[in-house]
Amino acid sequence: MIILYSDDHRQQAGRAELNDGRLVPCHERPERAEMVLARARQMALGPLRPPSLLDEAPILRVHDKAYVEFLKTAWDQWVVEHGDWDALPLNWLAPNMHRRVVPESIDGKLGYYSFDAGTPITEGTWRAALAAASCAVTAADLVSSGDRASFALVRPPGHHAGQAFYGGYCFVNNAAVAAQRMLDGGAERIAILDVDYHHGNGTQEIFWERDDVLFVCVHADPRQEFPYYSGHADERGGGRGEGFTLNLPLPWGTDWPAYAEALSIAASRIQEFTPDALVVSLGADTYEGDPISRFRLTMEDFPRIGAMIERIGLPTCFVMEGGYAVDALGVNIVNVLTGFEGR
Amino acid sequence: MIILYSDDHRQQAGRAELNDGRLVPCHERPERAEMVLARARQMALGPLRPPSLLDEAPILRVHDKAYVEFLKTAWDQWVVEHGDWDALPLNWLAPNMHRRVVPESIDGKLGYYSFDAGTPITEGTWRAALAAASCAVTAADLVSSGDRASFALVRPPGHHAGQAFYGGYCFVNNAAVAAQRMLDGGAERIAILDVDYHHGNGTQEIFWERDDVLFVCVHADPRQEFPYYSGHADERGGGRGEGFTLNLPLPWGTDWPAYAEALSIAASRIQEFTPDALVVSLGADTYEGDPISRFRLTMEDFPRIGAMIERIGLPTCFVMEGGYAVDALGVNIVNVLTGFEGR
Ligand SMILES: [Zn+2]
Ligand SMILES: [Zn+2]
Repeated sequence: MIILYSDDHRQQAGRAELNDGRLVPCHERPERAEMVLARARQMALGPLRPPSLLDEAPILRVHDKAYVEFLKTAWDQWVVEHGDWDALPLNWLAPNMHRRVVPESIDGKLGYYSFDAGTPITEGTWRAALAAASCAVTAADLVSSGDRASFALVRPPGHHAGQAFYGGYCFVNNAAVAAQRMLDGGAERIAILDVDYHHGNGTQEIFWERDDVLFVCVHADPRQEFPYYSGHADERGGGRGEGFTLNLPLPWGTDWPAYAEALSIAASRIQEFTPDALVVSLGADTYEGDPISRFRLTMEDFPRIGAMIERIGLPTCFVMEGGYAVDALGVNIVNVLTGFEGR
Repeated sequence: MIILYSDDHRQQAGRAELNDGRLVPCHERPERAEMVLARARQMALGPLRPPSLLDEAPILRVHDKAYVEFLKTAWDQWVVEHGDWDALPLNWLAPNMHRRVVPESIDGKLGYYSFDAGTPITEGTWRAALAAASCAVTAADLVSSGDRASFALVRPPGHHAGQAFYGGYCFVNNAAVAAQRMLDGGAERIAILDVDYHHGNGTQEIFWERDDVLFVCVHADPRQEFPYYSGHADERGGGRGEGFTLNLPLPWGTDWPAYAEALSIAASRIQEFTPDALVVSLGADTYEGDPISRFRLTMEDFPRIGAMIERIGLPTCFVMEGGYAVDALGVNIVNVLTGFEGR
């Protein structure tokens, strides 16, 4: 399969995230993509291509314009107010506060548009996010025009980013942009399968009231795990979108048998939806060695995930999400893809 | 006037808060109360008394039981999961997420109940907060039983804490507890005047739908200043509480003439309400030398604030809030109180 990749991902290289009450080096770092790229080459996964165009129009199909404008300008305002250091929010909306007036000061804006203190905005954040989304767009276009599969090898990841918020290392929801791109290109129904360890709260929020996008997510139970306040089994979509969100939360310690059962339910629901194509939010933080996660999938399980996704039988656009055991990440991500290819 | 004070405030001594993208030493620290205490003694402001009882019942009159339970147990759970280090939240509710299921893990709980990453929970947080609220209760009781004024010399401060959230260095809303205490003791109407630099978003939230508590707040415009998402002039209360919240936001750089004008409007509104007594949320971060604030009141202005409050003509319970120019804090806070006493 063709691999969409841009070196611009390196523009997002945050220094620190807030974790366990301390500022620690960012888990989401450029080496992640480098490791996957090296392994993809080693396994001859497919030819590398840059995004065909860097264009924010497809991003604006799923994100608010004011939010995108914020992403483009936040760093410049931050540097003026605070100097050359990663931008992190310090406070946010308490219960019974409402998003009503966008603050003028950068700290107020950061809290207004974010949902964690682990996702630094840096000088290159927008450039990297734009490149990642553009890779996803090109990967979607390949599938729309007949490819069986494509792989957007991107970072920063996207599935935690909503219409007007960032967090969880995500700024632009690459998978959502890809799905909407296929719809705009003529598809009638698109399914998104999210196999990242964490709930894809941004994707869910974007398509919550839509019946042309089915969102199916297998993830760690939010009672135990980030993002905590989204991804419960009883969240099923709203309005005409009711029934078009399917959450399959699993407890800490989940290993292959339980994971495979959930994935099988996900696959059935997707087939029942009869979509034109499938977008996969592909994280490998379900791996037992992941430093911030608590599932117990082994390296041998990742090809099985790929094979199960292949058996859904749909043109499939893979979009990379999380996975923080950097040394194993290349093997695990590419194992899903070679598993999909049946080799 | 009698000063209510407990050494237990020292139990809250956080190591770090997130500010400008960095973890910096806490601005809200024990020296604040020590400086005010020293100055109060120097000026012979009045006799010192401990709270008459450490009792959480008055706290539960304005805070949710589950929230108080969280405050009492958060540290123990945090230490088990993360070790002996200040507890800070890492993420929070994004737009379109809802407070529905309280997470089991401590990180999830911290984000559920907080609105910033600048308010560490430590081993002694609950003990300090309970002592502060108890000082406020005793100060309220003195005024209820005929004293012209009393002063709860407390920390951690309280006016940012809501029914079920903490933040802005605040855990229990001491001023709200005091106001409710007076009502429970037979008062029909209580006014709260908040002269801290920051909007008292917690107090506003607690009494938003109440017509027996008038909340009047003179503060930095939330477009520019923390807490950003609360304190606009058009926030006037809701339901039967409509019209019983008065916000008087002022821009960065405000000096005495503009401040005095707002305070005069506040005083008029309080007199019109004809309350039985007044609670003052007394911060001194309006001072020109405050490290995290941007008003331009001078040391000479603080006695004037006290004199203006005195002219409202009500039994008055002062409850200490913010002020982070520690060296000047004692003088500025006590200047308000001696100004009130006309000396
Ligand atoms: Zn993840
Ligand atoms: Zn303040």
